[in-house]
Amino acid sequence: MRPSSSSSEGGLFAAVLGRGGPAGQVDDQAWLAAMLQMETALAGAAARLGAVSDSAAAAVALACSDPGRFDLAELGRQAAATGNPVPPLVERIRALVPPQAGVAVHFGATSQDVLDTAMVLVSKRALLLLSEDLAAVAGAAAALALTHRDTVMAGRTLLQQAVPITFGLKAAGWTTMLDGAWVRVGATARSLPVQYGGAAGTLAAAEGHGLALLGELAARLGLAEPVLPWHTARLPVADLAAALGATCGVVAKIATDVVLLSQTEVGEVSEGVPARGGSSTMAHKRNPVAAVSARAAARRAPGLVAGLLSSMEAEHERAAGPWHAEWETLSELVRAAGSSVAWLRDCLENLRVDPERMTANLSEDLRGVRAGDAQALVDRALDSHRSHHPDAS
Amino acid sequence: MRPSSSSSEGGLFAAVLGRGGPAGQVDDQAWLAAMLQMETALAGAAARLGAVSDSAAAAVALACSDPGRFDLAELGRQAAATGNPVPPLVERIRALVPPQAGVAVHFGATSQDVLDTAMVLVSKRALLLLSEDLAAVAGAAAALALTHRDTVMAGRTLLQQAVPITFGLKAAGWTTMLDGAWVRVGATARSLPVQYGGAAGTLAAAEGHGLALLGELAARLGLAEPVLPWHTARLPVADLAAALGATCGVVAKIATDVVLLSQTEVGEVSEGVPARGGSSTMAHKRNPVAAVSARAAARRAPGLVAGLLSSMEAEHERAAGPWHAEWETLSELVRAAGSSVAWLRDCLENLRVDPERMTANLSEDLRGVRAGDAQALVDRALDSHRSHHPDAS
Amino acid sequence: MRPSSSSSEGGLFAAVLGRGGPAGQVDDQAWLAAMLQMETALAGAAARLGAVSDSAAAAVALACSDPGRFDLAELGRQAAATGNPVPPLVERIRALVPPQAGVAVHFGATSQDVLDTAMVLVSKRALLLLSEDLAAVAGAAAALALTHRDTVMAGRTLLQQAVPITFGLKAAGWTTMLDGAWVRVGATARSLPVQYGGAAGTLAAAEGHGLALLGELAARLGLAEPVLPWHTARLPVADLAAALGATCGVVAKIATDVVLLSQTEVGEVSEGVPARGGSSTMAHKRNPVAAVSARAAARRAPGLVAGLLSSMEAEHERAAGPWHAEWETLSELVRAAGSSVAWLRDCLENLRVDPERMTANLSEDLRGVRAGDAQALVDRALDSHRSHHPDAS
Amino acid sequence: MRPSSSSSEGGLFAAVLGRGGPAGQVDDQAWLAAMLQMETALAGAAARLGAVSDSAAAAVALACSDPGRFDLAELGRQAAATGNPVPPLVERIRALVPPQAGVAVHFGATSQDVLDTAMVLVSKRALLLLSEDLAAVAGAAAALALTHRDTVMAGRTLLQQAVPITFGLKAAGWTTMLDGAWVRVGATARSLPVQYGGAAGTLAAAEGHGLALLGELAARLGLAEPVLPWHTARLPVADLAAALGATCGVVAKIATDVVLLSQTEVGEVSEGVPARGGSSTMAHKRNPVAAVSARAAARRAPGLVAGLLSSMEAEHERAAGPWHAEWETLSELVRAAGSSVAWLRDCLENLRVDPERMTANLSEDLRGVRAGDAQALVDRALDSHRSHHPDAS
Repeated sequence: MRPSSSSSEGGLFAAVLGRGGPAGQVDDQAWLAAMLQMETALAGAAARLGAVSDSAAAAVALACSDPGRFDLAELGRQAAATGNPVPPLVERIRALVPPQAGVAVHFGATSQDVLDTAMVLVSKRALLLLSEDLAAVAGAAAALALTHRDTVMAGRTLLQQAVPITFGLKAAGWTTMLDGAWVRVGATARSLPVQYGGAAGTLAAAEGHGLALLGELAARLGLAEPVLPWHTARLPVADLAAALGATCGVVAKIATDVVLLSQTEVGEVSEGVPARGGSSTMAHKRNPVAAVSARAAARRAPGLVAGLLSSMEAEHERAAGPWHAEWETLSELVRAAGSSVAWLRDCLENLRVDPERMTANLSEDLRGVRAGDAQALVDRALDSHRSHHPDAS
Repeated sequence: MRPSSSSSEGGLFAAVLGRGGPAGQVDDQAWLAAMLQMETALAGAAARLGAVSDSAAAAVALACSDPGRFDLAELGRQAAATGNPVPPLVERIRALVPPQAGVAVHFGATSQDVLDTAMVLVSKRALLLLSEDLAAVAGAAAALALTHRDTVMAGRTLLQQAVPITFGLKAAGWTTMLDGAWVRVGATARSLPVQYGGAAGTLAAAEGHGLALLGELAARLGLAEPVLPWHTARLPVADLAAALGATCGVVAKIATDVVLLSQTEVGEVSEGVPARGGSSTMAHKRNPVAAVSARAAARRAPGLVAGLLSSMEAEHERAAGPWHAEWETLSELVRAAGSSVAWLRDCLENLRVDPERMTANLSEDLRGVRAGDAQALVDRALDSHRSHHPDAS
Repeated sequence: MRPSSSSSEGGLFAAVLGRGGPAGQVDDQAWLAAMLQMETALAGAAARLGAVSDSAAAAVALACSDPGRFDLAELGRQAAATGNPVPPLVERIRALVPPQAGVAVHFGATSQDVLDTAMVLVSKRALLLLSEDLAAVAGAAAALALTHRDTVMAGRTLLQQAVPITFGLKAAGWTTMLDGAWVRVGATARSLPVQYGGAAGTLAAAEGHGLALLGELAARLGLAEPVLPWHTARLPVADLAAALGATCGVVAKIATDVVLLSQTEVGEVSEGVPARGGSSTMAHKRNPVAAVSARAAARRAPGLVAGLLSSMEAEHERAAGPWHAEWETLSELVRAAGSSVAWLRDCLENLRVDPERMTANLSEDLRGVRAGDAQALVDRALDSHRSHHPDAS
Repeated sequence: MRPSSSSSEGGLFAAVLGRGGPAGQVDDQAWLAAMLQMETALAGAAARLGAVSDSAAAAVALACSDPGRFDLAELGRQAAATGNPVPPLVERIRALVPPQAGVAVHFGATSQDVLDTAMVLVSKRALLLLSEDLAAVAGAAAALALTHRDTVMAGRTLLQQAVPITFGLKAAGWTTMLDGAWVRVGATARSLPVQYGGAAGTLAAAEGHGLALLGELAARLGLAEPVLPWHTARLPVADLAAALGATCGVVAKIATDVVLLSQTEVGEVSEGVPARGGSSTMAHKRNPVAAVSARAAARRAPGLVAGLLSSMEAEHERAAGPWHAEWETLSELVRAAGSSVAWLRDCLENLRVDPERMTANLSEDLRGVRAGDAQALVDRALDSHRSHHPDAS
């Protein structure tokens, strides 16, 4: 797993709640880089269509190529004047290009075009990393399912032992859920559209090149081309919320299972990273730190999803508040989903399973009872898993 | 406890917050009917596979064919003993069939199989009605877009006049969003899987017929066949939450636009149902009742979606609370989505547009300014709309 | 649209999710009765101040004295014309009084005055019942604390055995939390204000009696007198949300503890109601139905609270949607809180504690270790409890 | 207003969404400082009670006096091993004191004691700053109410002109709401308790000094003394959520009013900070940046409150995830509330009111109609305001 870079939340809680790659894709630097990428692509696309000169576009590309020339804190401060950081960013780009290239800066665009496209770009990158982690953790779950295909344990309903299952079936259930999250995350990543519409979505400032620019921009940025500008039609945000919320729900379920199986009185699994989970004052204790941390981050999701859905109520051609409320809420949700999946990956890749304890825990009534079609169901889940991940071992 | 009379779900607020077809698909009668449908299908499928006799299955089907033989209130009361209404339901079915047919009742099933499948059945029916209303309201929006393709009005960002748009473009934006909701609702309806797994999801009580039954049940009920039982893998619930939440967000945006355009000081649209929206004490007033009601129901969604996503944290093989919390939350969300779409349909189908007022309202700076590519964008949205609804005029 | 039958609010799930007295205080009949109480009080207050005649007020009181003269379903249907059920209610009252008494009907009021005051009245009654149940369940927890003051058990952090505590201390923690909820619920009940302001909160239609009426109404209805009409200043709704949300959080914590202690592998407590929690197919099983049901209802709260807080965003002098969204959301939240507390009361009043199992479960490292100041803390909690409930045994 | 220091979210969006003092009280540095303050107070209290020597306590105080000796990023990284940053913090303190002073480090405490008390300390400081801003903005609203006590404008219900009010009455409504938020924030700040309980809340490691330490710590830190340790009894968190959520709801209402009154077609108020709200491309436009930004931050609250309430479901003696989920969610909520209030203060302190436009906008039916008891209500609200803020002019 890639080293956890600083996220938008900073250091103190980042290892617990901002683990994994996605957090680093939604921090300030990533947002800035994505805004610059949009400005570069826009100038390039405008040149390609003959709306501006190639040299002007090249000047914009050069100016935007080094994020170090942009003072994040200063841009942030200046954002107070207009309510978003794009106007000072554009002003800074203009200052960095020759006067005659100014026409190629922010061509036909409005602030929201840049921020929305940046949001989509950072989200897409985050989703791709999330997707990798989801595939890995699904693989770890599938390996547990295969290894423990025949390991009988208690099935527990309402936390009471009910009838026998196998640990393989439990892990197969995790696998299938994780594959389901992987499918949703991937589909959402592929569906994310570029935003470009100008001040009120009419492409009026694009001098007749608007529709062509929309397509050209999408192609350059590897994003979908929308039917219309979606400045106040926020289904892409709803889709992100849905995929990330579902992913966190899947993690919460699995992490809860691990926490419960790790209980002192159950002891059927334990987390296997040696240098972790010890207690300075209680030497006998081994905490399921990975599962607990996965669960913690995942539990932030429902409220954050609610926040994003509330922001769909966008007035006319630019929302007076709901739009702005998306930026941090979405970043937080990406970070929470990324951290929860990264921790769960760590958890399942290092999970120690104790089949003897599973047998010993079986209550009298459950001993000798068949676990139904558990094995066939495991096979079925593994077949499905392999169909999603043909290269999986 | 006083007998549970119809409460906030019932009559007093139903016309405002429970309008439209979907609400009737998630009331108690609908849940009961769906549970009986599941029990009937299960007996039929078991007979088809030779697990029980045809006559036993026929007896179950007969017993379940008349919901009037089941006392809802009594089932509800008895549910307190086990925490869900299925055990008394099954007991009642058993009492209605000959003793020798008892083996065909609830064959290999657990309570959750019946309740989850019923939840999916009522939701699917509700989604199909919702889908119809969404198609109709998208059609109404498309008609407005076509009619007003060239009607110039102010584009408003942060509620300030910015640059001109056309009302056609605004309505085209509504159309595209509504089509987007329609696509999501339809895809979710088609994806909903049957639930059948027995006590802990191993199909143990199905006497070896479990996997075959899973497929047979799906076919009989017109539902998808899942890879595994999903008793504690709640992605189908997350999908329902996502589709309904997105739909409500779309409605909230459009209804907010209508409320804002209907303001006394703006007056560019008004609701055209004559006998509605008057004020007994203020004769001059005409309230946008449909838009307000649509917005009211839609605004319930984010919190309800959060509730459903929280319920994904399901312990082991049956959740100790989160599962039960889904029943009413999902019903409420379906009802809210149904009502918001039904009101919006009423609103847009009867919307009166005042192009002269739109012209008059244009601020000095905006007069004579071109609305960019608004018309081309309208055409593009209408093309897309027709591709979703080929029969639309 | 099919007639609104009782839906998810009604019978089928009511025993599980709508147990206890509060649910009955927020059903349609209760809302209607409260609206009639407001209209009666208003006429009476107006007569007291000389604004209308005593005989007119008496006619209104008589008309409103029998809810049976009002057809709930019909009022509900007529509500579609104006967006709320008060106009048809007022029309019906007018039809029931002699013409000369018409002036005393709905004196100086607007629909929202009646609905808001009704909301406060039904909520206050519900809170008082909730308060009784909270006192009872706190008493049950206190009794457990006293009885098990010295019963050593494992303290568990992150679900791992950590150091010894006593069951008395755990129950003392429950007691203190429940007392905290009781204090918040009681304070909120006492703070709820009457709403009376007329069409836009200026008391314009009260013919100069407005301010006096505000005080008189508050006194007659046993409600607080607000500084100003609060039609779009929704702090009373926020207070209700806070008290109910906190209460559900307290229940969720305690019910989760009970579910965990009831696990087959832990078995330190069990629910003691004989005819409940059995499984038809698994005779060995005893489900903690009360704790599970308490947890289920309680878990609905966070999303519902979010919904109510969202409704604080009320436009100008009457919210265009957020207000209407409160009615069902608040009713649901009251019902959820009431049910969760009622189930928890049942749970704790019938809880069976197994001190031997507690001893047996103690892991090796914890045996013989002192439980710190657990007993002193229990005494402290019980002192505090008695200070809140001086009549408690 | 104090300069907006860096918040936990960093720079790019901080001016829009993290304005004001509270954000700086919940960033990483503030959490670290508060943890060190707790460790210092604990050593001091232990010395005061004779549990450790004065010199040892002095050594701890010295070590903790310079946050610069603690590497935030490193502590954050090390937190991954245990799931929270306190163990590496304590280890670092130990390394900074002489060996014989080690006994005074983290005396009798567990990680959660330090983090929870730190959470309360940072929250309390944030609430005090928030309180100042709330008093200031309430003062600004009161000044508007006084100035415009007789300025007639349209009262608008469902965004339709209904009957006349005065702008004074509208501002009086804002004042009363803001005072209500101020009261709730202040009461919550005063109620926040210290947390100290040791590993499982029994004070076992405090060598008999536990109860005395609880009181001594509370006194030293200026916090309330709880009846019991509240490690898994999270009412203090619920209270914070309630006060902050209510505050954001109040801001959302007022900011929405300002946005609506600022509409081009209404124009009754405008924001008066000259260098703000202009549009680079649309010179005629003046955006209500302060109101929009206030609304944006405020709208994040309902989802964040839901997240905190969900965390009340804390298992046994330490929650396995819900606890950890509080840290960032609460920090975000504090920051959102602080920013929304700071922006609203800016907005109302600089609001330009256009009484002529108010008169001109009055629709024909409303002209000459009395605004009821609007003036008397303004006086009533101002009296109430002065009773809360006796020093207010």
